[in-house]
Parts: sequence; structure tokens; C-alpha cells
Amino acid sequence: MEVKEVLEKVKAGEMSVGEAEAYFRRQPLEELGYAKLDTHRKLRSGFAEVVFCSGKADEHLLRIYERIYMAEGEVLGTRASKEQAALIQGTFCEAEYDPLSKILKIEKKDKARVGKIAVCTAGTADIPVAEEAAQTAEFFGNHVERIYDVGVSGIHRLLAKVETIQSALCVVAVAGMEGALASVIGGLVDKPVIAVPTSIGYGASMKGLSALLTMINSCANGIAVVNIDNGYGAGYMASQINRLGVHEAL
Amino acid sequence: MEVKEVLEKVKAGEMSVGEAEAYFRRQPLEELGYAKLDTHRKLRSGFAEVVFCSGKADEHLLRIYERIYMAEGEVLGTRASKEQAALIQGTFCEAEYDPLSKILKIEKKDKARVGKIAVCTAGTADIPVAEEAAQTAEFFGNHVERIYDVGVSGIHRLLAKVETIQSALCVVAVAGMEGALASVIGGLVDKPVIAVPTSIGYGASMKGLSALLTMINSCANGIAVVNIDNGYGAGYMASQINRLGVHEAL
Amino acid sequence: MEVKEVLEKVKAGEMSVGEAEAYFRRQPLEELGYAKLDTHRKLRSGFAEVVFCSGKADEHLLRIYERIYMAEGEVLGTRASKEQAALIQGTFCEAEYDPLSKILKIEKKDKARVGKIAVCTAGTADIPVAEEAAQTAEFFGNHVERIYDVGVSGIHRLLAKVETIQSALCVVAVAGMEGALASVIGGLVDKPVIAVPTSIGYGASMKGLSALLTMINSCANGIAVVNIDNGYGAGYMASQINRLGVHEAL
Amino acid sequence: MEVKEVLEKVKAGEMSVGEAEAYFRRQPLEELGYAKLDTHRKLRSGFAEVVFCSGKADEHLLRIYERIYMAEGEVLGTRASKEQAALIQGTFCEAEYDPLSKILKIEKKDKARVGKIAVCTAGTADIPVAEEAAQTAEFFGNHVERIYDVGVSGIHRLLAKVETIQSALCVVAVAGMEGALASVIGGLVDKPVIAVPTSIGYGASMKGLSALLTMINSCANGIAVVNIDNGYGAGYMASQINRLGVHEAL
Amino acid sequence: MEVKEVLEKVKAGEMSVGEAEAYFRRQPLEELGYAKLDTHRKLRSGFAEVVFCSGKADEHLLRIYERIYMAEGEVLGTRASKEQAALIQGTFCEAEYDPLSKILKIEKKDKARVGKIAVCTAGTADIPVAEEAAQTAEFFGNHVERIYDVGVSGIHRLLAKVETIQSALCVVAVAGMEGALASVIGGLVDKPVIAVPTSIGYGASMKGLSALLTMINSCANGIAVVNIDNGYGAGYMASQINRLGVHEAL
Amino acid sequence: MEVKEVLEKVKAGEMSVGEAEAYFRRQPLEELGYAKLDTHRKLRSGFAEVVFCSGKADEHLLRIYERIYMAEGEVLGTRASKEQAALIQGTFCEAEYDPLSKILKIEKKDKARVGKIAVCTAGTADIPVAEEAAQTAEFFGNHVERIYDVGVSGIHRLLAKVETIQSALCVVAVAGMEGALASVIGGLVDKPVIAVPTSIGYGASMKGLSALLTMINSCANGIAVVNIDNGYGAGYMASQINRLGVHEAL
Amino acid sequence: MEVKEVLEKVKAGEMSVGEAEAYFRRQPLEELGYAKLDTHRKLRSGFAEVVFCSGKADEHLLRIYERIYMAEGEVLGTRASKEQAALIQGTFCEAEYDPLSKILKIEKKDKARVGKIAVCTAGTADIPVAEEAAQTAEFFGNHVERIYDVGVSGIHRLLAKVETIQSALCVVAVAGMEGALASVIGGLVDKPVIAVPTSIGYGASMKGLSALLTMINSCANGIAVVNIDNGYGAGYMASQINRLGVHEAL
Amino acid sequence: MEVKEVLEKVKAGEMSVGEAEAYFRRQPLEELGYAKLDTHRKLRSGFAEVVFCSGKADEHLLRIYERIYMAEGEVLGTRASKEQAALIQGTFCEAEYDPLSKILKIEKKDKARVGKIAVCTAGTADIPVAEEAAQTAEFFGNHVERIYDVGVSGIHRLLAKVETIQSALCVVAVAGMEGALASVIGGLVDKPVIAVPTSIGYGASMKGLSALLTMINSCANGIAVVNIDNGYGAGYMASQINRLGVHEAL
Repeated sequence: MEVKEVLEKVKAGEMSVGEAEAYFRRQPLEELGYAKLDTHRKLRSGFAEVVFCSGKADEHLLRIYERIYMAEGEVLGTRASKEQAALIQGTFCEAEYDPLSKILKIEKKDKARVGKIAVCTAGTADIPVAEEAAQTAEFFGNHVERIYDVGVSGIHRLLAKVETIQSALCVVAVAGMEGALASVIGGLVDKPVIAVPTSIGYGASMKGLSALLTMINSCANGIAVVNIDNGYGAGYMASQINRLGVHEAL
Repeated sequence: MEVKEVLEKVKAGEMSVGEAEAYFRRQPLEELGYAKLDTHRKLRSGFAEVVFCSGKADEHLLRIYERIYMAEGEVLGTRASKEQAALIQGTFCEAEYDPLSKILKIEKKDKARVGKIAVCTAGTADIPVAEEAAQTAEFFGNHVERIYDVGVSGIHRLLAKVETIQSALCVVAVAGMEGALASVIGGLVDKPVIAVPTSIGYGASMKGLSALLTMINSCANGIAVVNIDNGYGAGYMASQINRLGVHEAL
Repeated sequence: MEVKEVLEKVKAGEMSVGEAEAYFRRQPLEELGYAKLDTHRKLRSGFAEVVFCSGKADEHLLRIYERIYMAEGEVLGTRASKEQAALIQGTFCEAEYDPLSKILKIEKKDKARVGKIAVCTAGTADIPVAEEAAQTAEFFGNHVERIYDVGVSGIHRLLAKVETIQSALCVVAVAGMEGALASVIGGLVDKPVIAVPTSIGYGASMKGLSALLTMINSCANGIAVVNIDNGYGAGYMASQINRLGVHEAL
Repeated sequence: MEVKEVLEKVKAGEMSVGEAEAYFRRQPLEELGYAKLDTHRKLRSGFAEVVFCSGKADEHLLRIYERIYMAEGEVLGTRASKEQAALIQGTFCEAEYDPLSKILKIEKKDKARVGKIAVCTAGTADIPVAEEAAQTAEFFGNHVERIYDVGVSGIHRLLAKVETIQSALCVVAVAGMEGALASVIGGLVDKPVIAVPTSIGYGASMKGLSALLTMINSCANGIAVVNIDNGYGAGYMASQINRLGVHEAL
Repeated sequence: MEVKEVLEKVKAGEMSVGEAEAYFRRQPLEELGYAKLDTHRKLRSGFAEVVFCSGKADEHLLRIYERIYMAEGEVLGTRASKEQAALIQGTFCEAEYDPLSKILKIEKKDKARVGKIAVCTAGTADIPVAEEAAQTAEFFGNHVERIYDVGVSGIHRLLAKVETIQSALCVVAVAGMEGALASVIGGLVDKPVIAVPTSIGYGASMKGLSALLTMINSCANGIAVVNIDNGYGAGYMASQINRLGVHEAL
Repeated sequence: MEVKEVLEKVKAGEMSVGEAEAYFRRQPLEELGYAKLDTHRKLRSGFAEVVFCSGKADEHLLRIYERIYMAEGEVLGTRASKEQAALIQGTFCEAEYDPLSKILKIEKKDKARVGKIAVCTAGTADIPVAEEAAQTAEFFGNHVERIYDVGVSGIHRLLAKVETIQSALCVVAVAGMEGALASVIGGLVDKPVIAVPTSIGYGASMKGLSALLTMINSCANGIAVVNIDNGYGAGYMASQINRLGVHEAL
Repeated sequence: MEVKEVLEKVKAGEMSVGEAEAYFRRQPLEELGYAKLDTHRKLRSGFAEVVFCSGKADEHLLRIYERIYMAEGEVLGTRASKEQAALIQGTFCEAEYDPLSKILKIEKKDKARVGKIAVCTAGTADIPVAEEAAQTAEFFGNHVERIYDVGVSGIHRLLAKVETIQSALCVVAVAGMEGALASVIGGLVDKPVIAVPTSIGYGASMKGLSALLTMINSCANGIAVVNIDNGYGAGYMASQINRLGVHEAL
Repeated sequence: MEVKEVLEKVKAGEMSVGEAEAYFRRQPLEELGYAKLDTHRKLRSGFAEVVFCSGKADEHLLRIYERIYMAEGEVLGTRASKEQAALIQGTFCEAEYDPLSKILKIEKKDKARVGKIAVCTAGTADIPVAEEAAQTAEFFGNHVERIYDVGVSGIHRLLAKVETIQSALCVVAVAGMEGALASVIGGLVDKPVIAVPTSIGYGASMKGLSALLTMINSCANGIAVVNIDNGYGAGYMASQINRLGVHEAL
């Protein structure tokens, strides 16, 4: 039930003031006993609650999916295991699971996708993180262009895609090891770049810390960084920015 | 010379196979027309070049100011020392210097400022970095609201300003030491938050690295991080975002 | 046998001076061969020896439980595996095992619990560490209130519980990732806050080091930090503080 | 305006559904009455505001001292420079400055000091930090015993003071370099120990980080750690604990 | 098909200008859908594409081997698992796999090997990394001398091989733990030394970071360092240098 | 060939100037007679070669044991797995394996053990490393006293053993977590203390790095540190020192 | 006196065998009392001793310059202060000092410079380190092309210089902050690239460590890294490589 | 009062059970006779107290020198400034100050120096730390051989001194930057090597941490490490070892 709906009912006398008050007091913190889901979030942020599946017990996970599905008609889950996918698909046969991005979602059909977010990776090994970003942004109704394997050690591959990248309202740059992709892209576009270091690599990559440092130290303008492997976070922020820019792009 | 042209010449016997082979050795980059990339930065990004004054020799600095002023009619310089300010003001009497933010600028009059960027700090010691962000954004034509000294260890101070912060199109959160401000703001707003760790502090703050780690690890959605003390970078990216959102805000 | 009891027996002539002397010489260091258990500890600190089960060989563990049970009539063990639980429960059928907190205990019935310790977590993933703290404090006779999943990225959840938290004599704040919970709580209460970083997280959380740094750098007053995942240590110190404050709270 | 009031107005048609929806968008925070949190700090915590002098501009510092003096009749300032001391003493002739602890205070006469806090240092070089802790605690009305230069590399010095340390309600252990003092004291007392690493040292002491790690990893029970050189923080928390325990000690 | 060949065909009228143009436009970025292989690389660098097998899906890996084999008549793959070796050998029966170096290659027969590269290791545990370097260099047509287990803690072993090492045009020094081998060799030869830290070790070796720091800090002249365990990178660069020097050595 | 000889030949025209120049190019090392350095290790150091078993291939390991046994009549191996033990015991039925210390040895009977080395541990979890040290020292003919589980958080346990520790010619102090044991012992004895950090622990112990830092920063005199978990290294150096001191102790 | 010259004299009977022997024995280690200069170095490595001026006492420095000048007729000194320059110029009026690179040299006239080394920087702030590399290489007789301020955040600047860079036999890539320059160049050239991180920067650049990590983690082939700010080391190794390649370039 | 005595009094009714219980609460430490530990340091360790001058106030320093001089007839001070030297020399005209090692001492005449300690350095910049070690050892009556500037990047310099180093009973190896000296020496001698990292260096030397790691990771036997720049600590421990070995050397 939506906020507006409750208010309409109050106005129409179909719901008492007491019932409505109880609703509003309860609603932001409605407890599942183990975790407090914020169903008010969509109202505030425009984005529904997203489920971080990793480490959640089966029964808990199922109840969370049920509850959000009830409230929203769709659910986005990240970092889901194959076992969790099977579990949710047992109840929701329309649930889709992508083993690459580990996204487990129930999505409304025929969702319009607006604007343009470019999601780029340095190598093929960075694609799982990039897909988490891309699919998150798509779930939130944004149009995404994927430009993968354009790392800076073969700069012509990136340059061949410059026009596509420049046409986006926001760019997500995903890279591990030396993480230099964000800097080069930052110098090529005039829109915000969200840099995502990945834990892909070996030796002194230190599970993404080196790439994180490279990106934080970028000399290019218009770059900010999210946590290592945090494709979801990049996709979320790109969605916020893309939405802001849709009017301009039209 | 175009690829086609070379091939035509080979066909016509006007160019030897060896000459053509040498051409194609270099070709992967030249053919992409990178020279087209070398258009004026302002044209590409909408923002004119900014001068990072720190460490520049006097004569060099003066010439840069003169060149940019000639081209743009205004100049923004960051991290300028008092001595550099005196130098530039000797030539450009309208140059303004703010010793707090270390911004040294010549700015066009009556610049319109659109949208709204909220710049917040945890403590008073973070203000110099925040001012670098705020004045950069203002120079680029954005409206800025300053909300200073609202650190999370006295959460009521922040909560008292929630409406103002929520009304912005983009938020810059500046904090040193534990750097928790960005997370709390990230949970309160539905617009992108750019987090700026500061080197203010002592002990285990490690000149901003602790705050940087806190911000990168934020559990809130819609937060990305720039380098320690990089107020300019935050102001720049906030300007990009705010501009995208101006249409929505109108 | 208690110290007082021995002395009463000496006074009453039921025990010779030689026997008593041997008792006191032997007692603080009474050896099990492999580890020196300090049964004098309870006398000194008011708390009996607690068993850190992790890594202990089966036979050793069983003998330690037997010895402490003999001396105290109850035993508290932390970081016990399921296998260790089965082992101890084979001998002590009244032993209880909680797979979440990994606490394996034999506890006296009807223990009075005094004062109030609030144990808070940022997320649901921090609950195992919080339970180690809470159950340790309860075993030592303290009343505990659990306030879970009140992380700062949704500050209203925490604020909804402020009165409960403020009514405690000591607060334990458990958080991973950015670890900002302790700072916010520190600004809300006037009692000591013991911060526990957790190793929960990914990317730049560095297995709890980031949260540890955040907490150590807290700008709030009245916060001190224990080791990553050290719920037991927090529960112990909270017990010491709560006990000191019981008189005031009455 | 209360939730109920808004709903009554909607029901009565005095407020449109749109206005009410906007209200509820902001509501999750406002409804919790956070304004009530904004009571005076002393009322909440029992301790008046303390001034962190380092880095404050002269005029600003003076005004803060004047304001707090007006409200409290006394002022505690930490990390004050000699120049700042001279400035404040120019206005407040009764202001006292200790160049060792860098505490600059105006204190009410004949303050009663209750309970007992033991402040211990490993070496003589740790005394400035210890004095910040001790004088902070004394300002807040606590009785402090100083036990200095009892580092663990000469354990008999510490053992000679055991009874004094054991008689305190709370112990502050200040140490640099290897920082082992806290662990040894933790094993000797049954009251909480607040460990303060100091930046004193050279080589691999890494300005206190090594001592911080030692203290965080302590195997003794009842120890928690504050930031490097944070004598004030330790003195504050010790004051909270000592006050809780005063009743028991009487 | 080689560049020259295409051009010859154009000259001979066997290929139209349009076909050739399409070839040159497509060729550097010829897509496999998931990864863009740079077949132009050999033209530019003199070395064909090398396959980093680790983590690649079976089908992808097979297609990459097929494609490179088609273009080059041979393939070099690094970090291949036993399973990947079996997979490739199923299709290419002439493929050779070395479980020590994890190199999986199809190599042209009777390849001439020129110049001399000395590959040295400190211990026997460093040999897998050294073999990756040596076999890479051999694949690229260089003559390699292996000098293994000559660590500096038994300096006579190294000195006994000085003449061999001094006769090389380039030296690769592979070492873990303290990593001092590169410095000693650097002082003994007048040719470039490429230092490779290995992750072999325990304790404070920090998976090769200590060795990396040792090598980067070397006081000897003519030493540069590649990533931890990056035998391939060292072999590649040694090949570049050796090739430059072949003329001198003749 | 000697320098003089070469010169005589040049003088006599039996060697050309060019040949002689080539000789002197190599000379700085050869002239020092480094071959003399290649004497048998036992002759030089008094200790036979020790086998680091971890990671060695079965056949290789067996051959090493055979070779050393042939030469010395006994073999000491460290870090051996159960499987390696079974392998060696298949050939050498008198080989003994201790799964705690992972030492796999064939030792001569009735070896005299001289002097006294005290091996101390902070906890029971440090015993495997301590046993590696103790058994190494015993194999090399030294008398060892074990004093285990005397960590500084229960200082009376250590003090109860002071006389034994003080009677040793060298002390090995093994500790993880906070690693403070070495400092306390260093203050109690007048003989060298070799500190061994262990990787035992959790949280901020960082696999022994914290203990290593504590020990390196020790304020006590006469302490030096070996690598994390390097019981063998400590046992070896203690053997060198103990042997030096045997004469004094007699 | 050259080795050859000595030998010729022996052959000609102008020098006795004994005198020559004494010469060869003494020469490699000829002592100045405080430092052992290796005059044999030029023979072995082809490069004369270079003076690291920083921190050397005046008298020592002067004597070293005198001695090398005597032996070589020229001297190269690095990291010289202005005061040291004045000192040396007091004795050697032909000594030249460059305050940017801090190189203080006495150089033979009309030195031929062969081959081509490209020295590139990301920014203008990296130029001092680049000049140390370039001038070192020039002193050793190599031709150097300087390509400065071609950082990757404005990739067109670098691309405009591709042909020059590709024509070099060896490239030195100097960069601070994110340090991505080496990776991009590595992908553009087929010759070895020596990467030099610089300590230029602020925030998380950690005095060059971030750039060092970026470069070590480079995904491009043919890159190796020297110490932070070690322009001299890069210039030295580039000289070795360039010299090897001169024959090919002719 | 003895345990037995207390018990006799309880039995005799001369002491109440409560008084006796209080006694036994404190007993575990007192009973061990720790007061016996408080004997004079020199008696225990054979070495008189040494003064760490750095940071001590003038008056305090003077009083310490006077007290120790009174007791011992000589004083050893380390890390003394020129000003402190002048101060002490004002009172003790026989005090000697060495600005290189910063040792400020009053030493008895004609002290016998026994045994042999070799103190080696990698470079000339390490000499101040080496002199602190050497002069400390000499003050304690040990014979010291100095072997300076024998770093491993010119191994012939070290080899030329092998016999001298091998004749010592203990070796101190002092090195900064890559710190490889200790490993090479460890492989050449059969006596204990004490490694001292120095903070000399730049770039990734991280003020000695890199050298510390190199030394801790040494693969050579018989090496242990003291703190960065801790020449005093190395000299002290070398003195302990040398003294043990004097009998053997005679």
C-alpha cells in the first residue's frame, strides 16, 4: 500500500485516523524480527530496497523476497549464490538468476529505460562486477551501454568507442590491477565517472587496493570511487545521476 | 591521409607495399582521428581549465593566468599561497584571494548560479576543504548551500538541517577523523553524495586514510569518494551532477 | 572450595595449617599439564575463567570444562565449534550451545541479572559478534537489551531506539564496514560506549581494519575500542562497568 | 505538528493529500522528536563542553572561552599552545596553563574529587599524554592517582604499585613503543582498563600505530583502547566509569 | 593473413580497395564477442598475443587458442590449469603443458634461439616463476640459461656462476622472502637486471610484498622490478632487451 | 691462475694484452678465492644442513634425507606434513615425527645436551612454534627448558618461573596477539632473548604482524626478533649463543 | 690509468710485475678512508662511478669529485644541493649545476650521443625526476628525447607524440599520483619501458607508493619499475638498454 | 608476612577470616617475592643503566648523569644533542661527545676490551647507527672491529673482509634501503648476526620498514633483528653474546 493510497482512504473515511497513524508509525521500521526493512525508502529515494543476499539464511532470504515482492511487485537481489537462486525460484518461478553478476531478480515486464549510462571494463575478468552495475541500473529503469575489455594497455580499443562513451550521461569505469581506465575515460568525457576497483588480479594488486588507490589519485576531473567490487553501488549512483540528466538528454 | 587513399595508391602503384606497411604499423591510432579529441576542454566538458597553483614557479603561474584570462575572461586557481596571490594581484587587481580555501580567482560579475549543491562538514577544521569545493562549484555557476559543523557525534545538529540537505541535487560531505558523515547523509537523501576525506586529525587518522576507508566502506547507497582534501575534485563533480539535474529542479 | 571456606576450616581446626598453606600455594597456578588455569581469577576479578574453545584438542577441552565445572558449578566457553558442542554435551547434558554466537555454556539456573547493558549492531551480519558480547554479559549476571540492525545509513532506525539506549549503564556498539555506529551512539548517550569492529564485509573493509580505524578515530566522547570480532572482550568490560553502576541505577 | 494532527486535517479536508504526502516524506526523522535530543550536553552527559584548542584562530578561541565561562563558570581546554595560553590569560587572569599536558583551564575552587582513577605510564616520555588524561579526570571531579614510569621491561616497578592500582575503580594505561603495559595491568586488576597508545618512539613504532595494535590485541580481559595520544578521551571515559562506581567504593 | 600479403593482393588486383579497407578497419579490434584480441600486436611489438588462461571459461579459451593458432601457427598460454591443458590437448594434440610453469603452448618446430638471457633464482621454490619467465623468452626466440638456487645466504653458489651470468645480455633475478638476489647480481653484471619478487614464503614475507620492497629499494644500478610472480612479464621484457642486444653479442 | 702469473705471461709475451684485459675484467671476484668459501657448512657453522620439508616433492625430499643421512648419520627436517613423515619413515624406520612441531628427524642416540636454553610461550596456542625451536636446539645438542603458557596478562604465572628462566644462557620468547612476553622477560634476565612472533590470533593480530611490531619496538635491552612462526630460526640462533656460553656456565 | 695501459707497460717492460700486481690488487677497493670507490666499475659496467651527493659532508664530497675527475676526466653527481654546487664550482669552475634535476656535473666536451631514449612525464611536477633520468642518460652518451606533460587524463596529448615515442629504443615513463602513464605507453610501443613513480602529489598518493603500485600492477607488456623518484636509476638502466640496441637502430 | 604465619594467626584467632581473605586476594603476586627482583640492574645484567638523552629536560638529564656517575664512576648516554653535550660537559669536563653517533659518555680509563664484535655497514650513510652500536659495545668492555661500506651491490668489497668478519664472536649488520647485507653475512659466518635496519633512504624505503622486512625475512640462519636505527640495542645484545663467548675465543 502506498502512502498516497492511505491518505486517500483517510480522506474518503475508509480508514480511521488511528489506523493510519499506526501505519505511519510502524511503516518505516516494520520489523521482520531479524532485519528492519525500510519500505519507506522508495518514497524517499525513488529506489526500492535491494537485497544483499550473501550470507543470509534461507528462510530469512525467502521472507525478505516475499515481503518486498508484496510491496513492490518486483525484487532485486545481489551477490546471490546458485543455491539461493534455486531457493527463490522454487517460490517465484519468474525469478531470473545470472551466475555472472550473481543478480537474482524478479522484474516487472516492459520497463521503460531512459537516458544512457556507459559501463566500461578494462578486461574480461572485470565483467562480473560491471554486470552487477549494469543490471542494477537497468532494474532501476536506466538505459545501459556495455563497453567491455577496453583497458588502457591497448588504448586504441578504448578510442574506438569514444563516441559511445561520450554520449552517456554517466560513465561507470570498472578495472582491477593498475586501474588506470577511469583516468583515461575521465579525460575523454564531460560527464561524471564512477570508478569501481575490482579484486581481480594477483601479486601486488592486493585484492583491489592498488586499483582503489590509482582511482582515488586520479588527476582527471569528475571521477569518484566506490568500494572494491561494489558494482551495485556504482549502478545505484549512476542511476541517480542518469535520472537527473534525462531531461537534458531529451 | 585516409586508409582508402593509401590503398588506392598501392593499387595504382603510386606507393610501394613497404611504404604502405609502414603506414599501417602506425595506423591503429591515427585512423581513429584522435586529433578530433584535441578540441578545447571547455567545449568538451563545459568547464574551463583550472590552475593548480601549488608548486608552480612565479613566472610560469603568471603566464598561465594571463593566457586563460585572455581566452576565458576569468580564471580559477586552487591551492595558491599568499605570495602567489600577491603576485597575481599585482597584475590583475580584480583577482580575489581567500586564504581559507586558498582559491585565487578572477571571476566574471553577475554570474547566474543554478540548481543547488549542499556542502556539509563534520567539524570546523574541515571547512577549508569544503570551501575549496563550494567556491569551485560557485565559479562554475552552481548555487551552493553551506552546512558546516554537523558531525555525527552530535547527530541532532545534522538532523536540524535535513530539509536543506534533502532539497539539494547533489551533496558534498567533507569529514576527517572517523569520516562517518557521508554514511549518515547517504541514508537521508535521495541524490548523489560525494564524500571528501580530510587530512585533519591526529593519531590513527593517518592523514585522512582512515576517513577515506570509512567512506569507501559506506553501507549507504549513492556515495562515491574523491581523494583526501580534494575539495576541488568534489566541487567539479558536484557541478557536473547539479547541471544535469537543473531541469528536474525547475 | 572457596577461600573463605578454607579459612573457616582452619579457624575451626578442621584443616591443618600445612594443608591450607599447600592449598594457597598451589591454587593460583594449579596446572593441568598443558595450560595453567587461574582459579584465583574469580577471587581477584569477580569473574570465573572463560574457555576460548577454538583450536583446543578434544580431550583438553573436556578436562577444562570438567575442572571449571567442579570449581564453579558453571562454565562459559566461546568460539566453540558444533563438534566441540557435541563433545561437551556428551558429558554435560545440560550444556547449551548457540551456533550463532558459538557460545557453549553450562549455566546455573535462575541467575539474577542486574543493571542494563545495551548491545547494538549496525547490520544483521554483525549479530553473531553482538551475541557473543550479550551472552557473555548475561552469563556474568548482567541485564542486556539487544538493539540490532540500527546502522547509521538509516539513522531513523537508531533514533527510534534512543531512549532504550540512553537508559543503559554501558553500551556495546558492534559494526563492520564503515563502523560509524559507535560515533553516533557516543553522541547520544552519557555512559561509556565499547566499540567492537567486525570482520564482516568485503573490498576495502580489510577484514575489520577499516571499522577499527573508524572507531579509534571517533570524535565522540566516551568511546573505547576492543579487537575485531572480540564480542567476548566487549561483554566482559561492559560487565565490569555495569556492575560498578548498579548502585547508581537502583 | 503531530502525525495524528496531520491525519485529522486530511480527514477534515483542511490539508490536501499532496501536502500530507510531502509531510510524510520528511516524517521518519521529524516524528521522533529529535529536537528533544538537542538539550544541553552537560544535562545529558554530566560533562560540560571541552575546547580542543589546537588550530583554532585567536578570536574564535577567545569567544569560545568567554561563552563557556559565562555558562559554566569554568572552562577546560586541551592541546593549547603557549601563545593561546597567553591570549586567554590576558582576559582571564585566573586561567592556568600546564605546558606539559597543554591543558589551559579556568577551574572552580575547592572542587570535590570522588572515587579513584589510576593513571599509569610505561615511561617518562608518556607523561604528557597521561597528564592530559589525569587533569581531564580531575577537572570532571574525579580523584586521580598517578603511577608513572612503570613499564613492563622492569616489571618490579609495576608490581611495587599493585595495591594502589588495584584499589582504583578504573585504570588508564598510557604507553608508546611496544605498548605492553595495558596487558600486564589488565591481568592484575578487576576493574576496566582504558589503554592509550602514545606516538612517542622511533623506528617501527610508526608514531603509535604499533602500540595501538599491541593494545587492541591484548589477551587480558577488561581492556579497551582509545586513539593514539588521546589522553583527553581516556580521561573522559575514565570519569564516566569512576562516577558509576563511586557508590560501590563508598 | 599478413599485412604485407593484403597489400600485395591489392597491388595485384586480387583484393579490392574496399575489402582491404574493411580488413584494416576491422583487424586491430576483431571481436570474439567477449574479448578483443589484438592481432595487430605482433606487427606493432614483434610478439604475438599471449593467453592468460587463469579464470577463462573452457569454451572461450578453446576459441582463443583456435583463433591465435589460425593467425600465428603457434600459441603461448600462461597460468593454465591441468584441466585447461587437457581441454586444449583434446583439440591440439601437439600442445605441450608444463605443470611447473603452468605454460600451455603450441610451438613451431626448430625455432632459432638467439642471444642469451640468464634466469636466476634464490631458491628451489622460486623455480615455477622462473620457468614461466624462461619458457616465455624461449617461445619468443631467445636463448636462455637457467641458474637456479643461488640465493645470497650461500653467496659462493652465486659466485661460482658469475661468468655465465656476466655473459648474458639481460638477467632475470627471481626471489621471494628477503629478495636480495637482484641487488647482488646487479653489482656483478653490466647488463640490465629484471627483478621478479615471488609470493613464496611465510610470516612477514606478506606474499611477496617484502621481496618487492627489497628489490625496489636496491642500491645496485641497472635493476627494475615487475609484479610479484610475474615471470611472464619478466620473460617478455628480457626478450625485448635481448633482441636489442643480439647484434652486439654476435 | 694467479694475478702474478698472468702478468708474468704478459711480460713474457705468452698472453696477449687483450686476453689479460679480459681476465682482469672478471678478476675482482675470482682473486678473492671465493672457492675457499665453499667448504662444508658443518665445518663452517658447526651445524649440519636442515631440511625445510614444506612444498618439497616426495622424490626430492627422500633423496635429500638419504644424502644428508649418508653424510651426517642424522637428519633434521622442519615443517613436514604427515604424508611426508610416512614417506620418510617408509625408508628410515627410525625416523621420528612430531605432529605438533612438524619436525621429522633421524637423530643419533645418546646425544649430550649442554648449557641451557629457556623456551617460553605466552599461550598454549604458541606451543607448536616453541616446540620447533626447542627440538631444533635439542637436535643441535643443547639442553632446553620449556616454560609454556606464561603470558603477561597473568603475570604471576611468569614470575613463578623467574629463577628457571634466569638460569638459562639464552631465552626464546614465543608469543602471538599482543606479543608482550619478550619485553617482560627481557627486563628479568641478563642473557640474550630471541623473540618469535606467532601467527596465532584473530582480528587485528594480522597473522603475527602486530606481535612482530610489538617485539621490534621492545624497550627492554637484549632482545632481537626473528620472522613470524620461525621457531627453527630462533632455535638455531639460540644454539649458537648457548654454545658460546657453555664454558661460562660450567 | 687504464687497465690496458698498465698491461701495455708490463709488456713493454716499463712497469714491473710486482708494481702491476699491486695495482690490480689495490684498484677495485681503493679506499678513501670513509668510502670505497670502485674505480673498476667502469671496466665492468661501462659506466663510471656516480656520486650521490645528498648528505655527504663538504670535505668528503670535494675529495670524491677530485678523485673521480682525476681518474675519468669527468664526474656525474646527483641530488646535489645549491651549497654543494657552490662548493664544487669553487674548485672546478667548469662544473655545471641544474637546480631542477639537482645534477652537478663536470662533463667532457663534444660527447657523441647515440640511439634514442624517450623520457616522458605525466605532469610538469614530474619534470625534476625526469631530468635526473634524462641528464644521466645523456652523460652516459645516449641521445634523449623529452616528451613532458602527456598524462593520461588528456590522452590526446600523448597520442600526438606517439611516433616520437615509438621511434625510441627504450622509454622512461615518469608519473606521480595515479601513475597510469606507463601502462598506456606500454601498450603503444614495442620497446622496454622503465616506469618511475614520483612522490609528487597529496592525499592518498602516499608519497609515491600509490603510483608505484599502479606501475607494478600494469597489464601492459614490457614494463618494469624502479624506486620512487629514482630518475638516476631509470636513466642508468635506459642507457644499458639503449646501448644494446644501437646496432639495430643504425 | 608468610602464608604460614597468616594461617597460624587465623588458627589462633589473632586474625579474622575477613582480614585473611583480604590478604589472599593480593597474595598471588606478593608471595612470589618479587621484591627480590628489585636488585640493582648491574648486578642482574652486568651492564649499568644507560641514558636515552633525546627529549630529556636539561635539569633532569644533568641529575641522571650525576646520579649514575656517583654510583658507577662512568656514564653512557645515547642520542644526545650538541646542546645536551655542552650542558653535561659544563659539569663533567671529561665527558666526551661524538656528533656522529650522538653518544655522550664519561668513561673510565684503560678499560680492557675482550672478544671480538664485527660491526658492518652497507653504506657510508649507515655509519652513525653503526657507531652507536660499536661505541656501546666498547663502553661495555668489548673489542669491536669496524667494517664499513661493504654493501651487497658490490659484493667484492664484502668478500675482501670475510676473514675479519668470520673471526668475530658476534656480528652486527647495519643497512638501510634493501637491507640485504645481513643475509649475505649470515651465510658467511657461523656466529650470531644482529641485523639493524636504518632509516636512511628515500622512496619506498619507508624510513627503514623495507630494510626491516628484508632482514626479518632472511633465509640465512642465525640472524635476528632489532628496531630501525637501534644501534644501541644491537650493541647491547652483541655485548651479551660476545661476553658469553669470550672463554671459547681464548
